[in-house]
Amino acid sequence: MTVGGLRAKVRAIGDDIENTERYRVVPGASFSLLDYDPNGTKTFDGNKKESQEVFDRLNQRLEDLQELLYADGRHKVLIVLQGMDTAGKDGAIRHIFDRTNPQGVKVASFKRPTPLELAHDYLWRAHAQMPGSGEIVIFNRSHYEDVLVVRVDALVPEERWRKRYHHIVELERLLADEGTTILKFFLHISKDEQKERLEARLADKEKLWKFDKGDLAVRAKWDAYQAAYEEALARTSTSFAPWYVIPANKKWYRNLVISKIIVERLEALGLKHPEPQDLAGVTVV
Amino acid sequence: MTVGGLRAKVRAIGDDIENTERYRVVPGASFSLLDYDPNGTKTFDGNKKESQEVFDRLNQRLEDLQELLYADGRHKVLIVLQGMDTAGKDGAIRHIFDRTNPQGVKVASFKRPTPLELAHDYLWRAHAQMPGSGEIVIFNRSHYEDVLVVRVDALVPEERWRKRYHHIVELERLLADEGTTILKFFLHISKDEQKERLEARLADKEKLWKFDKGDLAVRAKWDAYQAAYEEALARTSTSFAPWYVIPANKKWYRNLVISKIIVERLEALGLKHPEPQDLAGVTVV
Repeated sequence: MTVGGLRAKVRAIGDDIENTERYRVVPGASFSLLDYDPNGTKTFDGNKKESQEVFDRLNQRLEDLQELLYADGRHKVLIVLQGMDTAGKDGAIRHIFDRTNPQGVKVASFKRPTPLELAHDYLWRAHAQMPGSGEIVIFNRSHYEDVLVVRVDALVPEERWRKRYHHIVELERLLADEGTTILKFFLHISKDEQKERLEARLADKEKLWKFDKGDLAVRAKWDAYQAAYEEALARTSTSFAPWYVIPANKKWYRNLVISKIIVERLEALGLKHPEPQDLAGVTVV
Repeated sequence: MTVGGLRAKVRAIGDDIENTERYRVVPGASFSLLDYDPNGTKTFDGNKKESQEVFDRLNQRLEDLQELLYADGRHKVLIVLQGMDTAGKDGAIRHIFDRTNPQGVKVASFKRPTPLELAHDYLWRAHAQMPGSGEIVIFNRSHYEDVLVVRVDALVPEERWRKRYHHIVELERLLADEGTTILKFFLHISKDEQKERLEARLADKEKLWKFDKGDLAVRAKWDAYQAAYEEALARTSTSFAPWYVIPANKKWYRNLVISKIIVERLEALGLKHPEPQDLAGVTVV
């Protein structure tokens, strides 16, 4: 990771991939995960090797934008990553943010809640981790688990988790109204692809630590999870906190599309350096 | 403060004061602070001296209920206190909660936000302080300051603070849906009463430390604050998080009514000790 100075000249980059809008879940429109091909690479006219240069330019641009976001200090950015096991949440973070400055970028992981967390409402721990001004916070899993695993495993009654779509939308509305840009990515892999990835973990000594027997129990509930994701995405994709369904069977394409969307949204913020103070007559002695 | 055992027998107490409902701000109904007399003592047929025994019994009952709430562990309780300077927020806390156990009762004071707090949305610091299971948390001032002083002093544009009524209602809905009982008290004093109390602070060496010149600047904006309170109470009093306008010129009556309402609401929760574990054959060796 390098933390370079801000490039003076903004280059038009990533124009090779267009129409990332096709992956956005449109509020109010009918929505089915079946309409999204986990193998898709439609927005890029080329293969993995050819994508590398585009991805490198996006990475460079993201580095610049993150530094500018930090200097500007008026905006906060929340990025939510969700997906089945092996969908690539860790890999996406590692590759997409490998040049950004950890001073302004934090990852919050949401695992099994602690007793203290369970003693509070389920959004308590999520709200606590939200970005401050100038920050990017990446949620590796998130408050959405409270309508996913909680639903699939019936950890609370349906009448209780069903109210949560509304709560979540309203918390995100608050955040957006108060200056947070919110981007939510569902990393969409196929069940066959997951099988291959789990087998790869089993076969590779260096990947074996990532294998968790519990993942197989979750895999056995694949259809229930897809249904839970489908409803969650449909009910909580809003103009101020959209969901994107990212084809994630191909890792290079997953990274390319997520990078592109983040860069596009940061570009649209109109970030700028703060006005310099009046420095007339100031000398360094 | 004593932490006594739970009395076996629940006594009917505080029945001398009735109709505390008259102080509740009814959602959707027309509402004017002018309809509420700060001098009122209408629900109690007696004077300060005669009220003492009733208040003592309420205090005792609150001690028992708080211990039961803690043991029960299924409910959380949030109590919000707001009012102009000298309205008696500190005094109400000291008198009403003087027997409760600090292990289960916390006071959160909201003063001028820190830079870290200002870097987040305005409800961030309030959410962080919300009660956990079995806890009572008392907000001495609260997130409502973000539609009070923020409005009166135009700290953010109107289009921004006006959205906050909705945010606040929705955060409180989340809390209520997830098991929090919410009670909000506006300690209603008259402008003349505030004058006397401020003068008393100036005249008494032991009270002088509480005098803040800044209070006079706030007092000069009395009408703007009353208008801000009036709209805030009207827009955010809900079935799940009601506001009560408490006549607060007479301190004894203020304490009596708040105690009564808290006791009534805790009684209604149906608190009980958890089912004992199966202890057949257990001996202490």
